[in-house]
Amino acid sequence: MSASDPNALTPILRRGLYETIFGRRDMREFRSDPIPNEVLARVLVAAHRAGSVGFTQPWDFVIVRDLKRRQAVKAVFEEERWRNAHQFSGARRKQFMSFKLEGILEAPVNIIVTCRTGRFGPAVLGKTSIDEVEVFSTCLAVQNLWLAARAEGLGVGWVSILRNRELRQIFAIPDEILPVAYLCCGYVEAFPPRPQLETAGWADRIAPHGLLHFDSWERWGEKEPLALAVDDPAIWRDIFPDR
Amino acid sequence: MSASDPNALTPILRRGLYETIFGRRDMREFRSDPIPNEVLARVLVAAHRAGSVGFTQPWDFVIVRDLKRRQAVKAVFEEERWRNAHQFSGARRKQFMSFKLEGILEAPVNIIVTCRTGRFGPAVLGKTSIDEVEVFSTCLAVQNLWLAARAEGLGVGWVSILRNRELRQIFAIPDEILPVAYLCCGYVEAFPPRPQLETAGWADRIAPHGLLHFDSWERWGEKEPLALAVDDPAIWRDIFPDR
Repeated sequence: MSASDPNALTPILRRGLYETIFGRRDMREFRSDPIPNEVLARVLVAAHRAGSVGFTQPWDFVIVRDLKRRQAVKAVFEEERWRNAHQFSGARRKQFMSFKLEGILEAPVNIIVTCRTGRFGPAVLGKTSIDEVEVFSTCLAVQNLWLAARAEGLGVGWVSILRNRELRQIFAIPDEILPVAYLCCGYVEAFPPRPQLETAGWADRIAPHGLLHFDSWERWGEKEPLALAVDDPAIWRDIFPDR
Repeated sequence: MSASDPNALTPILRRGLYETIFGRRDMREFRSDPIPNEVLARVLVAAHRAGSVGFTQPWDFVIVRDLKRRQAVKAVFEEERWRNAHQFSGARRKQFMSFKLEGILEAPVNIIVTCRTGRFGPAVLGKTSIDEVEVFSTCLAVQNLWLAARAEGLGVGWVSILRNRELRQIFAIPDEILPVAYLCCGYVEAFPPRPQLETAGWADRIAPHGLLHFDSWERWGEKEPLALAVDDPAIWRDIFPDR
């Protein structure tokens, strides 16, 4: 094992990050216990500390507790779920319908993460031919939020089976603001060791080496040392000496 | 301070996550030292462990070390930088031109994170009216990569001043694959305490309470306990008892 760089965090602090990343799940079942404000505040500050193109900080957070509005969101979900189900047929549709895909009403809090382009004006450092850069930044904030929540013991479920037009109506979100993520958030009984869709056999986890290309899309390089390393449990020995 | 939930990580492990989040920077200057394969492998595995809509894992990673290709990318950057500069005028344009915005040639490795829609077929669990869900998932992987790199002492800089058409040509990326993030990656001298654009006065950090809305976009709720909590340093006492 190689010595760490002086700017690296200590192994125990790195372990905190990696445990969070590996233990994060897309949750659909929640306990109803309220979330202390200081805990939810840390999670939101973590989200706000994501990087953003041109330091635009394009995100806002709508904290949703109101039951009537959540019931309206749930109704939109139910409609879209049928549309989603009809993309599948036979046993696969049946399996789709067996999944619980949201916890809109059970979770004590829902959070809408939105994107506002041009917050500091139309000119953005870092935005030329790639137009979606602020939306990308907003997603980085979502991942920070999701990880901080996991570390605090809070489950987060991203509900994408929705329609933005109705979200704008229900929450009075202006047309120029894009709802990027609708998240259910709350404490959970337990975080399962693997994603629900993996356990259910809906899709398989891809082996990491199969995702690597070297200098060109067409060069997969299965014998590259890096491609061997990503599949090697030994790379984790320094971080998880007890496993 | 409230007691932690049983599913929460211990304070020291949570500190590892929060230190990483707060210490992550968009870096543009790199040391030339090579990155050990085991370190880069951990960073890539962390990226791959992001959540994805319908467990589609839509990301691929092109590991770029070839100098000729990086020089071609740099040439595209130089053209786009001029286009970007012309969005600004006067002192602001001059300041823009003074910023170093990439480390394409200095960093030992560049990484392109791409998005492949329909990896397991056109039907996607969780994709109905919101079409960009797989791109959103890809950005979550980028943030995992960025955080793991920071914890390992590696700087990452996201270069968005590029054109996807040329990236596809240089790296033989098929038309149906979207290059989402072009990242420079390498060890650095030091991580600055604040973002470069904040220190330079390009834009100010927004106070967190200014980003919160309650049940409706129009309800800012500055006196909500949560809005007070996000600006309160006391919420960090359990995590950083020494600060």
